[in-house]
Amino acid sequence: MVRTPLLESPSLNERLGGRILVKPEMLQRTGSFKFRGACNRILQLTPTERRGGVVAWSSGNHALAISAVCARLGIPAHIVMPESAPQMKIEGARRYGAKVRLYDRATESREEIGAGIAEAEGGIIVPPYDDFDVMAGQGTVGLEIMEQCREMGLVPDSVLSSASGGGLVAGIATAVRTLSPETEVYSIEPAGFDDLARSLACGKRVENTGGMSTLCDSLMASTPGVLTFPVNQALLADGLVVNDTEIRVGMAGCFEHFKLVAEPGGAAPLAAMLSGKLDLRGKTTVAVLSGGNVDPAVYSGIL
Amino acid sequence: MVRTPLLESPSLNERLGGRILVKPEMLQRTGSFKFRGACNRILQLTPTERRGGVVAWSSGNHALAISAVCARLGIPAHIVMPESAPQMKIEGARRYGAKVRLYDRATESREEIGAGIAEAEGGIIVPPYDDFDVMAGQGTVGLEIMEQCREMGLVPDSVLSSASGGGLVAGIATAVRTLSPETEVYSIEPAGFDDLARSLACGKRVENTGGMSTLCDSLMASTPGVLTFPVNQALLADGLVVNDTEIRVGMAGCFEHFKLVAEPGGAAPLAAMLSGKLDLRGKTTVAVLSGGNVDPAVYSGIL
Repeated sequence: MVRTPLLESPSLNERLGGRILVKPEMLQRTGSFKFRGACNRILQLTPTERRGGVVAWSSGNHALAISAVCARLGIPAHIVMPESAPQMKIEGARRYGAKVRLYDRATESREEIGAGIAEAEGGIIVPPYDDFDVMAGQGTVGLEIMEQCREMGLVPDSVLSSASGGGLVAGIATAVRTLSPETEVYSIEPAGFDDLARSLACGKRVENTGGMSTLCDSLMASTPGVLTFPVNQALLADGLVVNDTEIRVGMAGCFEHFKLVAEPGGAAPLAAMLSGKLDLRGKTTVAVLSGGNVDPAVYSGIL
Repeated sequence: MVRTPLLESPSLNERLGGRILVKPEMLQRTGSFKFRGACNRILQLTPTERRGGVVAWSSGNHALAISAVCARLGIPAHIVMPESAPQMKIEGARRYGAKVRLYDRATESREEIGAGIAEAEGGIIVPPYDDFDVMAGQGTVGLEIMEQCREMGLVPDSVLSSASGGGLVAGIATAVRTLSPETEVYSIEPAGFDDLARSLACGKRVENTGGMSTLCDSLMASTPGVLTFPVNQALLADGLVVNDTEIRVGMAGCFEHFKLVAEPGGAAPLAAMLSGKLDLRGKTTVAVLSGGNVDPAVYSGIL
């Protein structure tokens, strides 16, 4: 696992009037934070469980992480991915030796397909977020943030993280608010896929209305997780929402200020900051950039 | 200063058949290693010297570094830059408050213009490479590489760094070969601007023949430095050369394997590795990615 650095850009600080630190998880193995949770869960499989292999569904980053961890440990991996996933994510999982089953988001259920494979193969399902070991693994992002801030003599006023099923932000919030209860943690979601923000607002898990599109292929979960939501409900300050135009500005900001390749979902927290969703003046804010797995042609088009 | 991490990509390792570590200096302040040398030199100015300000010439990265350090310390900065420098480098220096004087590479001498400004303003010239304090500052890249390798239980077989005037590779070679005499250090230059490789081959400082172009705006020095060449002559294993096609592949490799934005010159060591200039099989090789300051339109075109 890479202990990703905490990076700072004087030009961005000046522009936003506060101290902004970014945690670049595109530098993590497999190009996203998902490697952390996959590692933590898979390392706990018994020898018997390992033999049956791992079954997972994912729009891409969890797929890459599971495939890489399984390849390293010599465990068979079966991944269910949407046909519309970025080509580089599908090919990446196959390159690690995973068996990839593509499905149609509109007409098929990935959970059903995954359950079928698990039964046929005797495999263990590793869900992308609704699993305490996965959430704890993602939470190491938060542990590292707090360690690195302490080394710099800082306590962050707030930490921003993208949310799909909510595993990353739940793990981060648990670590950060245990070590610093006064620090606020915010989730960021794409417009039309703001199920967590709306669920936080109304106090119960609600679904996306559907029929919307987003650049953020990695942030399309339709509803907050059963296990993640109570954690997020207890610990998050609020849920913020960004649209595709703001995402593009966030990706360009990662390029300009940090020389980092962010995938659309990976740029969501920077998008929220650059579009003024929070008052950052005079404050210390940490933005988690969750991943950088994006097709070169798509990236060039957005830049 | 950022202690940039040492990153690794299993997919790249597999492709090249060895262990490849990259030192991403695009994550350094101002987007390149130049911040290290500029800091080390400018921090040693006396209060009287500081008042007269700093004069420097640069195709861009040294300009950004000098401007940023001077801005931080409240020292006036005068920078002589070619009209053909990337727009983001010229604007970046101005944004830090430097006075930028543009010149024509074909008809004017940057050294003469700089000397004139220094005399008129009573300023101190901080050269881009021919200065022991600047070289020592760049050498901290090599110190960090050796520290980080030691933490990982590794001794690198070779270290690759781009070269323009040769200050970075001289600093790195001094640090690396002091701590590990058996490690080989290679310089990488663009075709047509391989003055260091040819000088190493014939044992004396020779100039580029001229009339060539390169994507690598940051690697266009016409001759090895007076101070840097003897160091490089004593310490380098060899000088390698890459063409523009190989540079493009190197930039795409930084994107694909590391999610890092490399400017053309910054990708030169990865370009050399991906085009098979060295046998890397079974070896541990460190590639210094020197910077990431590239205009978005240029970058998109190359991807």
